[in-house]
Amino acid sequence: MSLKEFAFIDLIKQSQATLNNASPYIDIGIGDDAAALNIPNNQSLVVSTDTLVDQVHFDQRISIADLAYKSLAVNLSDIAAMGATPIAFTLNITAPALSLPWCEAYLKGVSALAEKHQVALIGGDTTKGPLTLTLTAYGVVEKGKAIQRSQAKVGDRLFVSGHLGEAAFCLKHADKPAINMTALYRPEPQVALGRALQGIANAMIDLSDGLSSDLKHILHASQVGAIVNADDIPIAKPIQKTLSAHEALQFALHGGEDYQLCFTVPAEKLAQIETLKKTFPDIYDIGEVTEAQNYHLKQGNQTIALSAQGYQHFN
Amino acid sequence: MSLKEFAFIDLIKQSQATLNNASPYIDIGIGDDAAALNIPNNQSLVVSTDTLVDQVHFDQRISIADLAYKSLAVNLSDIAAMGATPIAFTLNITAPALSLPWCEAYLKGVSALAEKHQVALIGGDTTKGPLTLTLTAYGVVEKGKAIQRSQAKVGDRLFVSGHLGEAAFCLKHADKPAINMTALYRPEPQVALGRALQGIANAMIDLSDGLSSDLKHILHASQVGAIVNADDIPIAKPIQKTLSAHEALQFALHGGEDYQLCFTVPAEKLAQIETLKKTFPDIYDIGEVTEAQNYHLKQGNQTIALSAQGYQHFN
Repeated sequence: MSLKEFAFIDLIKQSQATLNNASPYIDIGIGDDAAALNIPNNQSLVVSTDTLVDQVHFDQRISIADLAYKSLAVNLSDIAAMGATPIAFTLNITAPALSLPWCEAYLKGVSALAEKHQVALIGGDTTKGPLTLTLTAYGVVEKGKAIQRSQAKVGDRLFVSGHLGEAAFCLKHADKPAINMTALYRPEPQVALGRALQGIANAMIDLSDGLSSDLKHILHASQVGAIVNADDIPIAKPIQKTLSAHEALQFALHGGEDYQLCFTVPAEKLAQIETLKKTFPDIYDIGEVTEAQNYHLKQGNQTIALSAQGYQHFN
Repeated sequence: MSLKEFAFIDLIKQSQATLNNASPYIDIGIGDDAAALNIPNNQSLVVSTDTLVDQVHFDQRISIADLAYKSLAVNLSDIAAMGATPIAFTLNITAPALSLPWCEAYLKGVSALAEKHQVALIGGDTTKGPLTLTLTAYGVVEKGKAIQRSQAKVGDRLFVSGHLGEAAFCLKHADKPAINMTALYRPEPQVALGRALQGIANAMIDLSDGLSSDLKHILHASQVGAIVNADDIPIAKPIQKTLSAHEALQFALHGGEDYQLCFTVPAEKLAQIETLKKTFPDIYDIGEVTEAQNYHLKQGNQTIALSAQGYQHFN
């Protein structure tokens, strides 16, 4: 059954009416030339956008509901990495055709995450063409309190918010029926932790391309270096069981798609991290921020140069 | 020459540094997980997004610079249609490859319009895939003063902000070398007029799909009807010369891509429209808002039913 553009928009409106009406941030929701958001006086609006392209970021092995969930999750992860609270999102769907089952599956998958974080779909666009999804997420953060990439300081400790490497492992082995794809298809954006790190972390980024590559962005923006302790990197248990220690480390270091947070904390705030661990037990200290020009991995007695090996388009 | 993703982002950063630094609205500009906008206390943030797809919305006949200009123009037009002032935009480019000349041409075209309206590029995404451009524009409007589609009232006069039909004529005749394509490729978003209509217009929309189709959105959202006077529709002069009166009217009524504003004004505000005409001489009264279930075109002694015939994806 094919669906007209406006029928899809009506379907979205209905499915989103409760969240649109309940949100104190939404002045004008879905359905006009533009939406209008009400940003509290002491807060800044935070905005992040990501595009997922068929056959590049995903393929037919992912279900529509999982794809929908993930398309929102990767954007909420960026909002989390600013220490901000997501409030809304817009959705641009380009697709060869719109069928009712496709649209319903998409809305079901995206709503699972949207309702959890109380983020409302406030607008977007539907166009005909090769399957491409652009989501833009909006958040709020106390003015001046957003956690940027550029504020890491020499001597900061380096942390990640959870186990790494499983999503990349899933991606590589997606054809094997025994593999549980949750880590790749339904990553959990670390919104609560991101917000809790406001005033504690000096710099933060979310891990989308891979630890070696994303951490490099912090170092580059902050003009510092780092030493990462290989033995302290929390490697996802499913890949610890399956792979050699060396292989598992490669997935955790360079694999990408983890959507955990990577952040730096100055010495005087480390006690607050210990307190946070009661709520977020999966925070791991993996190294130290150093002077610039230094990017190394320490493994036992060896220290080797580390390089960004994450995913890059357009090589 | 191919270009790495991060090289393109650096190119953008450089080209946008002046606008990013000058804008009082930008707390964190391009280059982090998310951008942060500073919204003044008495204002709402307005957001609109549009996707342009290769071979659907444009083809190889349009230059990259024109395409870039247009991709921003259509979004600024939506912001204008809310009576808001655009402040910034984000850009998601999906492309098979990124070459330096392509990127430079794109930035040149988009900057021509961005600088005029002082809107800064604050972030986005680059991905590999079929050529697709998603732009999202951000604006500000005094709280509660956004002009929505849904507030047209019976008895309002109906206006458009300029001559219609030329863009659609260009689209149909794009292969003829004598045709001046400016109306189609470089539409002028009616930002100053949109803002000036705050407190004057009851309802407003921008004309992207065509007058008959877009006006219908106002009528549907406001639960009213309209009578449009065919003889009062301002038809673009180049098509008046070329086409029969009947053909020219069809382009003006149903053609689309004009990016003029269509708005309704209550009787007690009509004097203010006369004053506005000193600054915006191309405002034309084309009819009246009536009770619902009525959508007609009056031409001489005839009154015929009008139907939305604008462009729709996914028919």
